[in-house]
Amino acid sequence: MITFYDIAVKDPIKTASPITWKTRFVLNYKKLPYKTVYLEFSDIENEFKKLGIPPSGAAGQPWPPYTCPSIIDHSNNNTPMTESYAIAEYLDKAYPDTLKVFPPGTEALQAAFYARFSQVMYLLHPLISPKVPECLNSPAKEHFIRSRSELLGMPLADFEPKGEERVEAWKKVQAAFDTFHGWLKQSSGPYFMGETVTFADFVVGGVLYALELVFGESSEEWKDISKWNDGRWAAFKESLEPYANTDN
Amino acid sequence: MITFYDIAVKDPIKTASPITWKTRFVLNYKKLPYKTVYLEFSDIENEFKKLGIPPSGAAGQPWPPYTCPSIIDHSNNNTPMTESYAIAEYLDKAYPDTLKVFPPGTEALQAAFYARFSQVMYLLHPLISPKVPECLNSPAKEHFIRSRSELLGMPLADFEPKGEERVEAWKKVQAAFDTFHGWLKQSSGPYFMGETVTFADFVVGGVLYALELVFGESSEEWKDISKWNDGRWAAFKESLEPYANTDN
Repeated sequence: MITFYDIAVKDPIKTASPITWKTRFVLNYKKLPYKTVYLEFSDIENEFKKLGIPPSGAAGQPWPPYTCPSIIDHSNNNTPMTESYAIAEYLDKAYPDTLKVFPPGTEALQAAFYARFSQVMYLLHPLISPKVPECLNSPAKEHFIRSRSELLGMPLADFEPKGEERVEAWKKVQAAFDTFHGWLKQSSGPYFMGETVTFADFVVGGVLYALELVFGESSEEWKDISKWNDGRWAAFKESLEPYANTDN
Repeated sequence: MITFYDIAVKDPIKTASPITWKTRFVLNYKKLPYKTVYLEFSDIENEFKKLGIPPSGAAGQPWPPYTCPSIIDHSNNNTPMTESYAIAEYLDKAYPDTLKVFPPGTEALQAAFYARFSQVMYLLHPLISPKVPECLNSPAKEHFIRSRSELLGMPLADFEPKGEERVEAWKKVQAAFDTFHGWLKQSSGPYFMGETVTFADFVVGGVLYALELVFGESSEEWKDISKWNDGRWAAFKESLEPYANTDN
């Protein structure tokens, strides 16, 4: 049994973060038994310190050191793991009989893909982060606004581009999806590795799920995205539904 | 039989460009019969127009539209192909019985890798381009200086960073190789896909071969690179020697 720590958001939404989606997809894809614990944003650090879940990533990164997703693997000496990429690598190794999300031999290419994709994610921060408080309960909401404003060195609301600046920012997001489309066109199937779902698909899928939730299914933004690249992204998102179960 | 169009450089150097190296590696790796035609930089455009080799790439790119590598495949209706990536894809498809440089299912990840890698190559332009004329014969040398200066909107020699600026530029190159090292560490073997050589390796290998030639084997720059990441790059370059034959 695995405990999966996800970020609590307003009812009835379960998983909202593009980052925690990745871990949920991986756990579902591998059919590993797990139970989700939803932590209010404001409780994550204290809770993880209590549980012995280590801080993630390097110093100086633009987000707090204790982050969801994290897991504790009770079937394996209560091993704590944090960060979606490291968790996926761990699960591939710890459970060799489950479907691999990093097919052997593709680990380095997946890492390069992830690096290029992560650059694109930065484009989305100014558009998404200011929307996040609307999805959170109090006092996590106020905690998020305060901590992000501190990290950004400006009020979180000012981080959101407006008017012509927003139009330009959105064009860059579209250009980024055009780039992903260009890569996917090279594939022989609907996924980055043909017919086989891998971590790369969950990376992109997590963003799509999060965008729909944060902007709203009937928002102009989501309607835009659904139309880009001949509807590829709406279809791509839908194709990952078998791995998007939030019942556990 | 395939004709491979490479850029002519000063004797006794054969292939010097990081871009044409990729095609030579691929041809050698696949053991396809080919013959190299070396074109002076100043003759490429006229020669390709005569041969019916199309211009490559998108408008507005910072290099001329007619570029080496190009090939003409005489065994297949004299098919002309240009650009190293497209040539490699073509050869994988046209010669399905040869070793594949894009193993099936990895095409999209290879494309993502290439996109990320190409960003890094831009870091090298200011350091490499001003050195290129030293490798060329006249009048290709003068043609290169003139055409590149026009594209850059400044004298080519001014493009090269000097003093503290050069130190900083070199640090960025080292950081880029650190990044590649980080990806390669994920691999189970010496290559980006484990024990199997793929296009990704030829991309990096082409840069290593070119750097050694342009800076010189006993240059400070090449000595630096040879030491980075515990000598990984010197070893990586050496491991590609079986595919670096320039006799054809």
